[in-house]
Amino acid sequence: MPSEQPWRRWRHVVKLDPDRPLPEGLLQALGDSGTDAVLLGGTQRITYDNVQALLGRLRRDVPHVPVWQEVSSEEAVVSGVDGYAIPVVLNAGDTRWLIGEHVRALLKYRPFLDWSNVLIEGYLVLNDDCAVADLTEANACLTREEAAAYAVAGESLFSMPVIYIEYSGTYGDPETVKEIARVVQNSHVFYGGGIDSFAKASEMGALADTIIVGNALYGENWREVLDASVRAVK
Amino acid sequence: MPSEQPWRRWRHVVKLDPDRPLPEGLLQALGDSGTDAVLLGGTQRITYDNVQALLGRLRRDVPHVPVWQEVSSEEAVVSGVDGYAIPVVLNAGDTRWLIGEHVRALLKYRPFLDWSNVLIEGYLVLNDDCAVADLTEANACLTREEAAAYAVAGESLFSMPVIYIEYSGTYGDPETVKEIARVVQNSHVFYGGGIDSFAKASEMGALADTIIVGNALYGENWREVLDASVRAVK
Repeated sequence: MPSEQPWRRWRHVVKLDPDRPLPEGLLQALGDSGTDAVLLGGTQRITYDNVQALLGRLRRDVPHVPVWQEVSSEEAVVSGVDGYAIPVVLNAGDTRWLIGEHVRALLKYRPFLDWSNVLIEGYLVLNDDCAVADLTEANACLTREEAAAYAVAGESLFSMPVIYIEYSGTYGDPETVKEIARVVQNSHVFYGGGIDSFAKASEMGALADTIIVGNALYGENWREVLDASVRAVK
Repeated sequence: MPSEQPWRRWRHVVKLDPDRPLPEGLLQALGDSGTDAVLLGGTQRITYDNVQALLGRLRRDVPHVPVWQEVSSEEAVVSGVDGYAIPVVLNAGDTRWLIGEHVRALLKYRPFLDWSNVLIEGYLVLNDDCAVADLTEANACLTREEAAAYAVAGESLFSMPVIYIEYSGTYGDPETVKEIARVVQNSHVFYGGGIDSFAKASEMGALADTIIVGNALYGENWREVLDASVRAVK
């Protein structure tokens, strides 16, 4: 592991989807918000071009904000970001999302890879709506104890530097997040999902090391969400 | 990771299968052989009782030889060994062998686990006879480059302390082992499969950090195999 791990200091991260149009004024507001970093990522229609375009706007408008790319498709990898986050879906139903896609990418990029600015994220895809399990090919319908066991496996079997609790768009169960944070010893805990208020940011921010705010920034109240969620954890 | 990692000094390991009858005199010969450790493990009919019985014989006859259990079934875990090796099959076809079974075991044993004497092994199941792929649910028919990419993934994504190249009963391709050893930076490399002579032990021992001798110790020439394979790497 590199000695320099800037993500260990992150309390608040903004996740921007290169496939979605940004609300007018959001980028400028980001620069003054106090957020620690921007993570570029999404699940559908992520291309080299739309990632590059969004990165360009960020570098021009808010050059002091660190930008990391969360790599979901090898074709969309751009240069010029501060780092790369590589998701490993711990509760995936298919080995592709645990190691298969990564091996495929390594076959192409291994000789060019600089591991010093790479962050491996051990994702736990959790969601009350169990229909999502099908889409993500994840065993997302876990009990609290099962979710905690996956987190321990991520930390102890795979030495994941980050355990990323992902409720994708819905607000998670604080007791589950609390239990995961309790059993994890060294891994840093990210929480993402449904944060759209001071109260929710505050609640999850007290349990996880870092909160990720995404979806709610594309809604009407984005300015309030951004401001309140940063205030809640800073 | 614990500071004490005795397996880093292993050059020669004997793998004993608790389900197979030992040749007369093998245990006594082990004590004088110079092998670094015994790994108790197998794939079929491994029970608490047969592991415990073999461990008892080892402790009585050769108490100075370290004995580690390679855990393939949670029901067969015994106490009183020097450590536990936990296999993670990197090229498994089913998530069970990457993380699923481990999560199931963690649900039962997590509170009692002492990680300081646990070694996580990143297995690469390779075999020329591709029929074995079905049995092991592994994608065992890999090109040299694919095998190397799996090894890099094991090291860089999952921080596996050991990459275990397993040709299970057949002698492997030295060029593949060489390529894996070349691309792996920090992980320790185990090689197992088909070592039944000085020449083979010598060849694989020059490429891998540790060679594992197993099957051939159950054959007629076990005394010669044991002696020659230790001499080749010591």
